[in-house]
Amino acid sequence: MENSPRNTVRPYLITKKLVPENQETPIHFQNGDIVNEKLFFRRNHFHYPKFTSSFYLLPIEGFVYTPKVFSLQEIYSFPAKAIRLVLECSGNKRELFEPNVFGEQWGKGAMSQGIWKGVSLRSLLQYTGLLDTAKEIVFEGYDYGARSDSNQFHHFSRSLPIEKALDPDTILDYEYNHHPLPFKHGFPLRLIVPGWYAMASVKWIKKMIVIDQEFKGPFQAVDYVYYPNTENDHQKTLVTSIHVNSTIQSPLNMQTLNTGVYEINGIAWTGTGQITTVEISMDEGLTWHTCELVSSSEKYAWVRWKYIWDAHKKGEYTIKSKATDSFGNIQPLDPIWNRKGYGYNAIDSIKVKIE
Amino acid sequence: MENSPRNTVRPYLITKKLVPENQETPIHFQNGDIVNEKLFFRRNHFHYPKFTSSFYLLPIEGFVYTPKVFSLQEIYSFPAKAIRLVLECSGNKRELFEPNVFGEQWGKGAMSQGIWKGVSLRSLLQYTGLLDTAKEIVFEGYDYGARSDSNQFHHFSRSLPIEKALDPDTILDYEYNHHPLPFKHGFPLRLIVPGWYAMASVKWIKKMIVIDQEFKGPFQAVDYVYYPNTENDHQKTLVTSIHVNSTIQSPLNMQTLNTGVYEINGIAWTGTGQITTVEISMDEGLTWHTCELVSSSEKYAWVRWKYIWDAHKKGEYTIKSKATDSFGNIQPLDPIWNRKGYGYNAIDSIKVKIE
Repeated sequence: MENSPRNTVRPYLITKKLVPENQETPIHFQNGDIVNEKLFFRRNHFHYPKFTSSFYLLPIEGFVYTPKVFSLQEIYSFPAKAIRLVLECSGNKRELFEPNVFGEQWGKGAMSQGIWKGVSLRSLLQYTGLLDTAKEIVFEGYDYGARSDSNQFHHFSRSLPIEKALDPDTILDYEYNHHPLPFKHGFPLRLIVPGWYAMASVKWIKKMIVIDQEFKGPFQAVDYVYYPNTENDHQKTLVTSIHVNSTIQSPLNMQTLNTGVYEINGIAWTGTGQITTVEISMDEGLTWHTCELVSSSEKYAWVRWKYIWDAHKKGEYTIKSKATDSFGNIQPLDPIWNRKGYGYNAIDSIKVKIE
Repeated sequence: MENSPRNTVRPYLITKKLVPENQETPIHFQNGDIVNEKLFFRRNHFHYPKFTSSFYLLPIEGFVYTPKVFSLQEIYSFPAKAIRLVLECSGNKRELFEPNVFGEQWGKGAMSQGIWKGVSLRSLLQYTGLLDTAKEIVFEGYDYGARSDSNQFHHFSRSLPIEKALDPDTILDYEYNHHPLPFKHGFPLRLIVPGWYAMASVKWIKKMIVIDQEFKGPFQAVDYVYYPNTENDHQKTLVTSIHVNSTIQSPLNMQTLNTGVYEINGIAWTGTGQITTVEISMDEGLTWHTCELVSSSEKYAWVRWKYIWDAHKKGEYTIKSKATDSFGNIQPLDPIWNRKGYGYNAIDSIKVKIE
């Protein structure tokens, strides 16, 4: 009876909001290198879009030599590239900011990882060319709706600077984990921008427009901006690269355990280079120990780490994890507070009690 | 395409722990009077038990005139009773205690409601009789395992005082929402103790033993006890009745809204009598307004309430809800802190921002 369906135990997405659908991955219960499609976090700005995918065409227009419309058949016929990478919402861990920040109260699971496959954007742009004055490429999604700061409807649109758009790893994706890209994650085509927070990876791409100036759409110039001050917009900067980060997956926060030997484990990731070191502390950050990396440390992907802990002394412990990347970025002790709550990457911290 | 399965949006259980399975109900997304079996919260002390339900028999033994073993057929043949009632884990809302308390970090959804149907325990006890010295009845579940404070294995066992056991509303349940009781919730027989926190409603009942003294099992004398002090066990009391309580379901905490007219809604419940009043405050508890009760206020069940809010002024608001029951119990402003974090019932409080 132990394995019968009636007592199967499995994790579920953690429901944050249903309209639009925002649900996070039960990240503490993901111990592999790819997340099943069903448990991939869902983050939407609007209702799911309606369009007829059988007539799908992708136009590239604007400051190009030759505007062109690609069919899916053409796109599928180009050489493809598969990349294992983390997509992380820039609001991941928002609920940990103090003072609290308004917006979706994401825990530690507004991130997932899997294998994305598609065609380099660069190879499509070879067909259209780019005018010398081209500065950015705007990606417009099929999803649209009202915003609280405007009477107009807006599509979800974001831009990339030309250099990032031409990075061979920036792809138009049509597969996830060797299956067709799921509708909820952007079928038939989703932009994947490795190393950047996931707002850049526009779903359900409707068209691409090359422009000769900075894009000023509200999902780029209003949202997804770091505002360090409460009362004014001084010193604002755009949200782009994923900050170096780590999460302890086991044990769980506020868990009670017997004395014994435990494997502490978790993940670490970064948008810049790759993870070089993960350290752990059992004493509020006074002393640190190096963790073993138990999966290969690759660009764009999370690395799994572990540390064997001999918990022979009863008491309460604060366990902290701290990751460093190959660009020398280290998780800070305190989060860098900002008004909209993006890019949380403070040293991860949990408490456990040994009885 | 809006209603096609590929973009169906639904809530899921919120995963807290998988071994044993502890998952909470997405309570903010339950707007009816019964919770679907799939979204009913799951709280276990051990692995799911293994036993062969086709040979299931229920013994009643100990301080009775005539020990007896009931078959399921006999139990099904007795007059049945159906009750709509809340089951609430005594650790519900534990994560809100400050200072934080060790143990499962339940949010507001370690509670669900549905229609429970079974036979009054009282009518079975008429067949066995009770000796004059009978004091309590112990209910032993099939689930068992190790505890952190002992080398022995323990079954999950709890007792009821004779008076509560003889309450006609205390039932041995075999149906939930007009379907056979799901295995995960105690099939084939679960005790249902209306008005008490859910630890009393023992699942997978193996046997019942009438005793002439106070039961001292660890799930009654160690756990499920209010310990008001951090360092010692003075003034401890047993966890029994559900405290008067309320939860705001909409809007969500830290949500950002446009100016406009909103329906604030939620639920209120109590283990003593029934809910008489729910009040709401928009100004940190300075002034209170009476909410409309939108479902009938019944013993054991939650009542749904609403309040129309004209949010025409921009700013940040703290919204609080406060329920009162027919015994005159009122939610306190501050939770009554206790070392194991049971019975949280402070006035519910959320923040929203009107832009």
